[in-house]
Amino acid sequence: MAERPDLPRRAGFGFFHSLRVRWSELDPQGIVFNPNYMVYFDIAVTEYLRALDFVYPRDFTEAGSDMFAVHASVNFCASARYDEHIDVGVRAARLGRTSFAFELAIFRGEELLVHGSLVYVNASLENRKPQLLPEPFVRKVMAFEKLPPERG
Amino acid sequence: MAERPDLPRRAGFGFFHSLRVRWSELDPQGIVFNPNYMVYFDIAVTEYLRALDFVYPRDFTEAGSDMFAVHASVNFCASARYDEHIDVGVRAARLGRTSFAFELAIFRGEELLVHGSLVYVNASLENRKPQLLPEPFVRKVMAFEKLPPERG
Amino acid sequence: MAERPDLPRRAGFGFFHSLRVRWSELDPQGIVFNPNYMVYFDIAVTEYLRALDFVYPRDFTEAGSDMFAVHASVNFCASARYDEHIDVGVRAARLGRTSFAFELAIFRGEELLVHGSLVYVNASLENRKPQLLPEPFVRKVMAFEKLPPERG
Amino acid sequence: MAERPDLPRRAGFGFFHSLRVRWSELDPQGIVFNPNYMVYFDIAVTEYLRALDFVYPRDFTEAGSDMFAVHASVNFCASARYDEHIDVGVRAARLGRTSFAFELAIFRGEELLVHGSLVYVNASLENRKPQLLPEPFVRKVMAFEKLPPERG
Repeated sequence: MAERPDLPRRAGFGFFHSLRVRWSELDPQGIVFNPNYMVYFDIAVTEYLRALDFVYPRDFTEAGSDMFAVHASVNFCASARYDEHIDVGVRAARLGRTSFAFELAIFRGEELLVHGSLVYVNASLENRKPQLLPEPFVRKVMAFEKLPPERG
Repeated sequence: MAERPDLPRRAGFGFFHSLRVRWSELDPQGIVFNPNYMVYFDIAVTEYLRALDFVYPRDFTEAGSDMFAVHASVNFCASARYDEHIDVGVRAARLGRTSFAFELAIFRGEELLVHGSLVYVNASLENRKPQLLPEPFVRKVMAFEKLPPERG
Repeated sequence: MAERPDLPRRAGFGFFHSLRVRWSELDPQGIVFNPNYMVYFDIAVTEYLRALDFVYPRDFTEAGSDMFAVHASVNFCASARYDEHIDVGVRAARLGRTSFAFELAIFRGEELLVHGSLVYVNASLENRKPQLLPEPFVRKVMAFEKLPPERG
Repeated sequence: MAERPDLPRRAGFGFFHSLRVRWSELDPQGIVFNPNYMVYFDIAVTEYLRALDFVYPRDFTEAGSDMFAVHASVNFCASARYDEHIDVGVRAARLGRTSFAFELAIFRGEELLVHGSLVYVNASLENRKPQLLPEPFVRKVMAFEKLPPERG
C-alpha cells in the first residue's frame, strides 16, 4: 500500500519515548484499550519536557501557572498488542502566546498505529486565566525542534 | 458569561448515562485524569446501544463485523471532581454506509465539562474491510434519535 | 458442590454496593483484571462510609487525620465478565484503637467471586503517627453493623 | 529506626524490574493509588518470566493450561510519588505440585515501600482443574533462584 502523504512519518519526529505494552492496558480483543493511547501521549509529553530539561510541573508552577489540556484528537490506524515495543513521537507543532500544540504519533517499527494532537493552554493557578507561555519553555522548545513550530 | 452558540447544550441530547466520579479516576490535581473522559465516553456508548436494544458486541459480531473506533476528539472545558454526579450525553450525529459518528458531551448539572466525538467504522472480523452498517442498527438509531443523524 | 464453611456468605453482609463491569476493566481473557477488584473494594468502602453518613475524606481530615490502608488481602474464586452486575459486600470486621479492618466479598447473584480484607490505620496528617479513631466513626459503625465488629 | 527483621530486604531478591511512576497511576494525595501496586506486581511477574526465558502466556497455554492468581496479599509501608524510580523485586517463594507463590517487594533505593505475595494455580484451559506445573517452568525457576523455593 502506498503511504498516504497526509499521515505523520517517523522521520518527522525528533523525539521518541519507547515503551512496552502492559497486560493491564489491553482490552478483551487483546489490543490496547483506546483511551490508553491518550495515557501514552501523556507519558511521552512528560518525557519530552524532561528531554528539554524542563521539569514538569515545577517549572510551570514556579511561574504561577500550569498547562491545561483543552483539546485532544486521536486517530486509530492499527492496534498495539501485548508486550510489543512501541515508540511515541512528540513534536511541538505550534507555539502561541498563551497556548501550544503537540503533534504525536505512535509507531511499531515503521508502522504508524495512532496519531493525534494535544492543545494546551498555560493558565494562572490563581484565576485560571490564560498567561503568556514561560519564556524558558518557548526558548527551549525553539532550540530543541529542528523543524520550527508554527508561531502564533 | 453568555453561552457560546457553537457548544453542545443538554437539550441537544436525547440520551444520557449518569455516573459518579471514582477516586481511582482522579489525578494529583484532584480532577478527573483526562483519558478517563474517553473511558466515560466508552461506557456511555455501551449504554446508548443498550437503550437502543442493540446488544454490543453480539449484534455486530453476529453479522460478521465489529465496530472499530477510528477517530476520537475531546474538548476539555471544565473538570469533574471526586464523587460528583455527571451526565454523559450521546447522540448519533452521522450514519454513513460503513461508518458512523457519535457526538458526546459531559455535563455537571447544566454546566458543560467536556465534549467531543467518536467515529467508528464497521469492519469485517475476517479481513478488517469496511462493511455496510447492520440494517437493524441503522433502523434502531433512526427510530431513537429525534433529531435525525446526518446520512452519508 | 457443598459450600465451604470458611467462605463468606451473602447473608453475612448488611451492606452492598452494586456495579456493572466496564469494558475498560477487563483483560484479554475477557475477565476483570485482578487489580480492578481492589478498585471495586475501594469504591464500595466509599459507599459504605456514605451509608454510615460519614463523609470521606472530610470527616477524617477535619479531625486532623486520614485513613491509610496498610494491608490488603484478596482471594480470587471466580471471574466477573463484561457487563455483569456484581454486588460488593462490606462489613466492618474489627475496630481497634487506631486501626480497623473491613471484610469484603464480591458476589454475582449468590455466587462468591472474590473476597478479602482491608486494614486501615488512622494517622495524623501532620506526622503520620497513628491516632485514635474518630469517635463519630466508631459510634456510627457500631450502630450500623448488626454483627458487632471485634474490638481491639 | 532499626530494621524489622520480618520485612523483606533488597538482598533477598535476585530479580528486579525497575519502572518510573506515571502521572496516571497517582491519586489525589499525589501518591500511587494502592491497586496500582498490584499492577506493578503483575508487570514484574511478566518480566521475571521473561528473565527465566519462559514466554507467558505461550509456554503455559502450549501445555494446555494457564496460571490463575488465586490469592494476593499486599502490605503498604510507604508511598511512591510522581516520576520516582522504583524497583520491584520478585522471588519464587514456593513451588508446589499444581500451584506456586511469588514473594514481591517494591523498593525506592533501599527503602521498602510495599511487599506482598501472589499465589497462582496452574489450571487446565479446558476444565479449569489444577494441573501439574509445566516441567520446564519448575526446572527454570529452580535454576534461576539462588535461595531455592520451598517445595510442596
